Amino acid sequence: MNLRMIAKTIGQILLAEAALMLPSVLVGLIYGETETWVFLPAIGILLAVGCVCLLFKPVSTEIFARDGYFIVAAAWILLSVFGALPFLFSGKFPSFWDCLFEIASGFSTTGASIVTDIDALPKCILFWRSFSHWIGGMGVLMFVLAIMPMSEERSLHLMRAEVPGPVVGKLVPRIRDTAKILYGVYAGMTALLAILLLFGGMPLFDALCYAFGTAGTGGFSISNAGIVGYDSAYIETVIAVFMLLFGVNFNLYYFILIGKAKDAFKSEELRVYLGVIAVAVIAIAINTYHIYQSLGQTLRYTFFQVTSIISSSGFGTADFVRDWPGFSKTVLVALMFMGACAGSTGGGFKVSRVMLLFKRAKSELHHLVHPRAVSVVRLEGKPVDHGMMKSVFGYLIIYLGSIAAVTLLLSLDEPDFATNFTAAVSCLNNIGPGLGKIGPMDNYAFYAAPSKVLLALAMLAGRLELLPMFVLFSPSSYRRRK
Amino acid sequence: MNLRMIAKTIGQILLAEAALMLPSVLVGLIYGETETWVFLPAIGILLAVGCVCLLFKPVSTEIFARDGYFIVAAAWILLSVFGALPFLFSGKFPSFWDCLFEIASGFSTTGASIVTDIDALPKCILFWRSFSHWIGGMGVLMFVLAIMPMSEERSLHLMRAEVPGPVVGKLVPRIRDTAKILYGVYAGMTALLAILLLFGGMPLFDALCYAFGTAGTGGFSISNAGIVGYDSAYIETVIAVFMLLFGVNFNLYYFILIGKAKDAFKSEELRVYLGVIAVAVIAIAINTYHIYQSLGQTLRYTFFQVTSIISSSGFGTADFVRDWPGFSKTVLVALMFMGACAGSTGGGFKVSRVMLLFKRAKSELHHLVHPRAVSVVRLEGKPVDHGMMKSVFGYLIIYLGSIAAVTLLLSLDEPDFATNFTAAVSCLNNIGPGLGKIGPMDNYAFYAAPSKVLLALAMLAGRLELLPMFVLFSPSSYRRRK
Repeated sequence: MNLRMIAKTIGQILLAEAALMLPSVLVGLIYGETETWVFLPAIGILLAVGCVCLLFKPVSTEIFARDGYFIVAAAWILLSVFGALPFLFSGKFPSFWDCLFEIASGFSTTGASIVTDIDALPKCILFWRSFSHWIGGMGVLMFVLAIMPMSEERSLHLMRAEVPGPVVGKLVPRIRDTAKILYGVYAGMTALLAILLLFGGMPLFDALCYAFGTAGTGGFSISNAGIVGYDSAYIETVIAVFMLLFGVNFNLYYFILIGKAKDAFKSEELRVYLGVIAVAVIAIAINTYHIYQSLGQTLRYTFFQVTSIISSSGFGTADFVRDWPGFSKTVLVALMFMGACAGSTGGGFKVSRVMLLFKRAKSELHHLVHPRAVSVVRLEGKPVDHGMMKSVFGYLIIYLGSIAAVTLLLSLDEPDFATNFTAAVSCLNNIGPGLGKIGPMDNYAFYAAPSKVLLALAMLAGRLELLPMFVLFSPSSYRRRK
Repeated sequence: MNLRMIAKTIGQILLAEAALMLPSVLVGLIYGETETWVFLPAIGILLAVGCVCLLFKPVSTEIFARDGYFIVAAAWILLSVFGALPFLFSGKFPSFWDCLFEIASGFSTTGASIVTDIDALPKCILFWRSFSHWIGGMGVLMFVLAIMPMSEERSLHLMRAEVPGPVVGKLVPRIRDTAKILYGVYAGMTALLAILLLFGGMPLFDALCYAFGTAGTGGFSISNAGIVGYDSAYIETVIAVFMLLFGVNFNLYYFILIGKAKDAFKSEELRVYLGVIAVAVIAIAINTYHIYQSLGQTLRYTFFQVTSIISSSGFGTADFVRDWPGFSKTVLVALMFMGACAGSTGGGFKVSRVMLLFKRAKSELHHLVHPRAVSVVRLEGKPVDHGMMKSVFGYLIIYLGSIAAVTLLLSLDEPDFATNFTAAVSCLNNIGPGLGKIGPMDNYAFYAAPSKVLLALAMLAGRLELLPMFVLFSPSSYRRRK
């Protein structure tokens, strides 16, 4: 491994994090909060550590694929460790592990929280919490790629390791330009959402925080009442529509921008994504109609909850664990597994991967019935090559194995199976709420410290689609090549 | 499809079922039970339908792979429908659907029951219930293959469709001889177990019934108290050891018989199977030691429960749902997924398939770190070819999809997620008990009729490793070949 190059890149990332804390300081100053000081030591430490990392002068700038995975995994862990410092210094959190859980949940865009009284937090802390969703949504390395000059090869390795989905496409020949376009679309859509929320009567601070949380498909609330507190069907609908939109592959928005809207709507993944949402909304609406009595109210709550779960946001306007029938809850758990589209800010296994698996299963059954027939699996009209299918399956096993391992370890702490299983699924898929004790109106505070650290790692691993984390912790990464 | 040939084979199978009801009649006569008559109309109907099927004179005896799957799936459903008749006529069951659930659970060697008062059942019915485990364990088609002359090609297709595991090996050149050898080993081990149970002071009837249930890795009890009722560490240990043994690939016993014991113990699958049992027993023993206080008692209960679940028997001597900590329960759920060895009477995903998946995941991670290295996945020392890996993955998706679908449908009936999810896993893997309301001391009576039919189909599908059932219900099976 090219350790000097790794150190240098991580240094750049930590300096970027220091810069990204400045808006929160500004918020604290505007509201005249005494807690604003907590960011200063955090920024100081980041600057110091970042500069030390930059002292390493790489002999060669060449990096390999595994270095890319290594950098991304290490960077996200360090971002969380340092990002937890403002929480820690504020004294509003019970322990460092709680701070780590909270910021990992933020960066990974999970939105699971250990805070029992959100109203007691100062605005600058709330802003940092929600802003971490926005940073994590598109990815901090993408941010670094967009603002700093870097070699093409190095950029590609980093981009591959951080951007979710089975295929990573460059929109334009240069990766730095691709990163700029994606961040531009992301920022533009976030701004549009914030403006629409302002129209709905939300204060500017709230509109910004919820726009960050929605854009990153995160899910942190900024008050105990959450989105329900505004009691506005308009606000709920706007957020629901944007959760759906942020779960779509961003490349499609670029196609629309450059006038190729037709191509965008041809996307097979987009159609399946919208189809699944429609079916889930209808199924849950039929199942919950007796609770809400009117069609309008039923659709208001079901559409919000379905888009919130499938996009992996995890905002809640209905207490589905307490109020909804078993069938609706089970549909939501199924949506947790599926997740959003590849190349979106959403988490989960990704719609396109689920499609590949279904197509593969169909072709296997076809093969049983017609052993001599040759069947080719196609995605987006193109035949899927053997290597991609292999890596999707490899990912599936690692994904299932991770869910099993996390569930098993959590059961050492908490006896309820439904709680532990959905906590594992929810954190690894970056959703937030689950069933049992971690419903949309509950929180993760009851877990013991080791479980919180485990879940923090699970959330970060899930955000990076597991593989980079496994590379970081795999002994074979540290062996010399033969 | 060669419909005449299919009808003829199914006719043979139904006649075999009529013959297999005779031992139960004998039991009824010995105990002078008035309920013995219930078998007569059932046998009469089977003879009539079987003979009508045999009237079809096949133009050609050639069958294809899909015909094999079709025959096996249809045969198991018909076996269950007709096998439910004695239960129905006895008037001891609430409805036909309950009878169907009970016998499907018997044939599939699941052992899930809807009977709330087992003590109220006559001995001839209890015998038929336990004997169905024994029939289902090795397979009724294997029985037909062993006793009736059939072409090699036809036999191979039927054997492939009925015998569990990724590879089906012929032990000797002729399949009929292979079937005879396997049934011989099976019968011999069952007899040995029955004798050992007699030594433990079990009455002959009980010893036979528990030997059938253990050999088939079924799990039906013959009294409300179950195995705990004998209060004998000897009986529990004998049954636990035999559950472990019946979860081993039967080919290994053949190797031992012909003096190649060394080859048998070299089996990679056997070693992993034993290793997993050892680790699970130790982990659960540490976790439950505080309940049983003494090492002997702890091992007695944990060893029994671990072998019972991994072999997919499902007998219970401890109420793990009520008494055991969450971690132990979660370990049991993990064992449910894994299941026993391929080519055993046990259910589940099978140890060798799990091994293939793990090796594939490891090679995928290795590939990430060393992109240019070539890695070959090996099982039992031989490289695994692309086709087998493809079919294991195809099976995995269909397996996971089935668990999801069954869980979702059950949630329309019962609100508890843990109950529905473990019911789906338990029935599709032919285990029996689960978590929540379906613990080892509970039963499935509370589910509504549609859920019972669904679970009956799931148990049969699970016993046949899903694919034959999908071929039976897939429209493309009925399309003409191009």
